[in-house]
Amino acid sequence: MAGVLADSDDLDWTSPDPESTLYLELASGRVVFELAPEFAPKTIANIKQLVRAGFFDGLSINRVQENYVVQWGDPAAGSDDARPQGEIAESLRPEFYRAASGLAFTALHSRDAYAKEVGFVDGMPAGRDGASGRAWLAHCYGMLGVGRDVGPASGNGSELYVVIGHAPRHLDRNVTLVGRVLSGMSHLSTLPRGGGALGFYLPEERKIPIVSMRVAADVEASARSRLQRFRTDTPAFDRLMEARTRRLEEWFVDPAGNIELCNVPIPVRLQTEVR
Amino acid sequence: MAGVLADSDDLDWTSPDPESTLYLELASGRVVFELAPEFAPKTIANIKQLVRAGFFDGLSINRVQENYVVQWGDPAAGSDDARPQGEIAESLRPEFYRAASGLAFTALHSRDAYAKEVGFVDGMPAGRDGASGRAWLAHCYGMLGVGRDVGPASGNGSELYVVIGHAPRHLDRNVTLVGRVLSGMSHLSTLPRGGGALGFYLPEERKIPIVSMRVAADVEASARSRLQRFRTDTPAFDRLMEARTRRLEEWFVDPAGNIELCNVPIPVRLQTEVR
Repeated sequence: MAGVLADSDDLDWTSPDPESTLYLELASGRVVFELAPEFAPKTIANIKQLVRAGFFDGLSINRVQENYVVQWGDPAAGSDDARPQGEIAESLRPEFYRAASGLAFTALHSRDAYAKEVGFVDGMPAGRDGASGRAWLAHCYGMLGVGRDVGPASGNGSELYVVIGHAPRHLDRNVTLVGRVLSGMSHLSTLPRGGGALGFYLPEERKIPIVSMRVAADVEASARSRLQRFRTDTPAFDRLMEARTRRLEEWFVDPAGNIELCNVPIPVRLQTEVR
Repeated sequence: MAGVLADSDDLDWTSPDPESTLYLELASGRVVFELAPEFAPKTIANIKQLVRAGFFDGLSINRVQENYVVQWGDPAAGSDDARPQGEIAESLRPEFYRAASGLAFTALHSRDAYAKEVGFVDGMPAGRDGASGRAWLAHCYGMLGVGRDVGPASGNGSELYVVIGHAPRHLDRNVTLVGRVLSGMSHLSTLPRGGGALGFYLPEERKIPIVSMRVAADVEASARSRLQRFRTDTPAFDRLMEARTRRLEEWFVDPAGNIELCNVPIPVRLQTEVR
């Protein structure tokens, strides 16, 4: 893979739109998310409205479940002490999947346990089913999703989670995914696990404070994370998938010759100065 | 799944052999491993010999790579300061796979990206290939393996690692796996990631000290972790796989109807008093 990246040129990289980039600021540092408005436009609009209203600022990470998810939002949600959400929709029609037509889908040749076809759409791992005509984002490590209760429309973006374990792909098409972590993942994955059911912190455990959430476009340019993400619709990405499948490195004595969706890395780099 | 476990009886659980159970003692607590001598008898004999000689005591965790592995051993390995390994074999014939015959293999019905057939052998996730007649342990979250250099026989058990991320199944049949974590996983998964290449700690970063490693059989009975592990060769385990595949819980609006090997939980409980 190092060879593929070394041979890449600037056209193989993209700078995510600051309007589709979120920052989660913790005491330990910043987590950067790239959003996927092609898949969840209404949910993302709601989340950005909440972020811009400062809804998440001063709230906390309330749940860290081993080999599963980190989740944050209002610990008082549902009680009289819940933080007001202003004019945000209380529930949203689920965006668990969308029409496959109209998406540039880079197929990965892989037997997948969960989807008839898997691949990548604009930097995001995804599934597709020709029979139903649907496509959806896949719950790989580092994906960002919207917590919900039993009702499918009960999530509005005020409870967010990130996958920190082996991909829980059985959640695909059951929850709205909205993007993925581009950098800062270890600020989430190393958090103390919660001692309560489902990894919720117990009253005597310290919830992790959220300093703020911001849309990158609202942050002054000098304070933005200057990240570029490898494009997934290029010949260079085809070569990356091939390199990770065949594993020609000397270390491998029995290369798999296959690869699973969530094991394909989507590289991120610091933007270099314009040359 | 809760229903399957509630309906289980004591015969559905097994108490791992103390001779095939290792403790890794850290300042934060104990990690318990169940070993798989059916797959890697010589490597496990070497590891137990190292453990019983106190080889690991006072060494350290030297590598924590995000979404990949935690690795420990002698940070001075290969140098003049390396800790002597006594009469331990310096290199071992790899135990990357074994003959499939003679193994009680509980098949999981799943399309798998890496193996023709997957399932469970005595509590361990495994792959199998009828054409080659081979079976092997699979690199799921929490699996314990033996680090090696480029030479396939270069690992002798003095460098051990645990998977802390999405299953790196491309390592299957390229490294000797020897068991899995039964409890204490979060002592490893929450460790600070190393800032060096491959997640090795930099000189200025603090390596995590290992208090000791012990074979459970060598620990007095009152200080042992009294764990039981769900058997994987019973009708109850068939029901567990089925429950995790069909997901009849009300929350699921679109149950996958499929499951991937590393998403099947193998439950562990505290041993209750003999009734």
